[in-house]
Amino acid sequence: MERITVTLGERSYPITIAAGLFNDPASFWPLKAGDQAMLVTNETLAPVYLAKVRQVLEAAGVNVDQVILPDGEQFKSLSVLDTVFTALLEKPHARDTTLIALGGGVIGDLTGFAAASYQRGVRFIQVPTTLLSQVDSSVGGKTAVNHPLGKNMIGAFYQPASVVVDLDCLKTLPARELASGLAEVIKYGIILDAAFFSWLEEHLDALLALDGTAMAYCIRRCCEIKADVVAADERESGLRALLNLGHTFGHAIEAHMGYGNWLHGEAVAAGMVMAARTAQRLGQFSEQETARVITLLTRAGLPVTGPETMAPEDYLPHMMRDKKVLGGELRLVLPLGIGNSELRSGVPHDVVLSAIADCQSA
Amino acid sequence: MERITVTLGERSYPITIAAGLFNDPASFWPLKAGDQAMLVTNETLAPVYLAKVRQVLEAAGVNVDQVILPDGEQFKSLSVLDTVFTALLEKPHARDTTLIALGGGVIGDLTGFAAASYQRGVRFIQVPTTLLSQVDSSVGGKTAVNHPLGKNMIGAFYQPASVVVDLDCLKTLPARELASGLAEVIKYGIILDAAFFSWLEEHLDALLALDGTAMAYCIRRCCEIKADVVAADERESGLRALLNLGHTFGHAIEAHMGYGNWLHGEAVAAGMVMAARTAQRLGQFSEQETARVITLLTRAGLPVTGPETMAPEDYLPHMMRDKKVLGGELRLVLPLGIGNSELRSGVPHDVVLSAIADCQSA
Repeated sequence: MERITVTLGERSYPITIAAGLFNDPASFWPLKAGDQAMLVTNETLAPVYLAKVRQVLEAAGVNVDQVILPDGEQFKSLSVLDTVFTALLEKPHARDTTLIALGGGVIGDLTGFAAASYQRGVRFIQVPTTLLSQVDSSVGGKTAVNHPLGKNMIGAFYQPASVVVDLDCLKTLPARELASGLAEVIKYGIILDAAFFSWLEEHLDALLALDGTAMAYCIRRCCEIKADVVAADERESGLRALLNLGHTFGHAIEAHMGYGNWLHGEAVAAGMVMAARTAQRLGQFSEQETARVITLLTRAGLPVTGPETMAPEDYLPHMMRDKKVLGGELRLVLPLGIGNSELRSGVPHDVVLSAIADCQSA
Repeated sequence: MERITVTLGERSYPITIAAGLFNDPASFWPLKAGDQAMLVTNETLAPVYLAKVRQVLEAAGVNVDQVILPDGEQFKSLSVLDTVFTALLEKPHARDTTLIALGGGVIGDLTGFAAASYQRGVRFIQVPTTLLSQVDSSVGGKTAVNHPLGKNMIGAFYQPASVVVDLDCLKTLPARELASGLAEVIKYGIILDAAFFSWLEEHLDALLALDGTAMAYCIRRCCEIKADVVAADERESGLRALLNLGHTFGHAIEAHMGYGNWLHGEAVAAGMVMAARTAQRLGQFSEQETARVITLLTRAGLPVTGPETMAPEDYLPHMMRDKKVLGGELRLVLPLGIGNSELRSGVPHDVVLSAIADCQSA
């Protein structure tokens, strides 16, 4: 079992990583006998995990209710959030309840924001079931729902009480979702850890084959990097923004194409190539480095060009709604080499447009 | 000009109290030239204040947009909140924008939660225009919207950057709303300050006549008490709960009667008498003290009995959804004398029901 701590003073919390965690009620610390809890999951995952997790918790004396949401990014909305509040109030659940987010990023983000907002804040536990959420969204306390005019525009910084990563979940994960998670994994290498990027070049096949040892190391290393960044900059005033490599472009793809058509990791993968091309045009990243990024993403089964139906001009209106925009000026995370990156202001829009054009599919 | 500081470390903020503040752009600190701001107000207040405030801010170089909401507690909802997000995203407003809540408690609570949630948190300024919001809801960082199953059930603890109390606003306030504010004023005396309660007994007529000196002192004293309580217990783990005297009963009245039919202060006034009667039945408050409370509330033009159409049994289901409920047990704020109160667990439901029955209108 791997265990990491996200260090945030009295809001510090553990991330536990192992196979078989769902069989042990101790995994769901700090829940204890007599506690009230609300399991939030979706229609796809409920038949797979819900009965098992409920059974383990109920055997441990936890009073468990459940709410099952429709599956998909398009349901990460204020109105679906409201159905969680309704479920909590109908029982009713009090301020000492605990929400359990059992699912991928959509469930984690929405449930986290529900926990942040219900009665102005109740406890919650992240139980991420996808690689993407295990290495990224379940750690760090960014919670949100989408607005039709922008992704993750409504939310809170709100830390979970613990994160439970059961590696067994990956066995039933569709290949496309596994690849989407690998996009965020590769991102950590590019922005902050050249050695990890090289390790990924060596072990990508093992990860794609779900080799247990390789996957446990990979997830632990990603969570370590994220935990360090979050501990240093919880509310994204600086360092934390680097975790957004590829996301400003990627969010534009997701918004333009309609949420859920491109998976988040797919959009980020194409976005990271656009960021690399932007950095190249600014003379701070080499063609060889871009080639390494493209090769690794391609091996992972990820797109390295934007959608055919999306022209460079289609990106900018979305990009200008990015949360990193300050004083009306776009700010982009750009690589300075493999394992090194910066948050950069004042990149000319024509450079951005040219870099996007460099990444148009033929 | 009276100025108080709410002391919360790096989230400390000033409350400025005076007549004529809307004429001076300095009142709206920390806004400065070049800043982007979104004024949020309602249809009733917009014709009275909006042009003036916009003009003052724009003359100072602030870029001001506005969103005008319908007027009423029934619009303190997730769906109306969404219209604020839409207005912010349509421009778009970035994470460095400032929301200005120009209005009473509904506008302040909703705008505060919008600020807490938009892009996971932007700056906001409270500009309360009613006595109730000036002495209560605009100070302390409780923000929320209502859910059909419970008042203020969705929200955040989120502090404003400053609070601007222009006494001139009270000149156009309907008498019923002035009285509603006085309910919260009287509450401060009962829970924590016997001398202030006595001062109110002496100066209530001056307050009802909007005497400037009396009103400035009254608002400052209430804000001081609240600021001290919030500084000691920002997230309501103990002391702060005392501010809820009468509110558990009052929220039941508001919810049962439909939001907006009983004003918040009216419901709290009746609720404080119910709390006094409960305390009497528990032997910790005297008939003479209850009589002083009833007399002062009556002089202020406030109800001291519950709605005729509401039976004692109608209260409990609403009261059990109160945010102070823990482990399925009701907790009530009860007076221990004028100027002294406690948060009490385990009050038998039959005592509560009898106390409510004591306060039934004939």
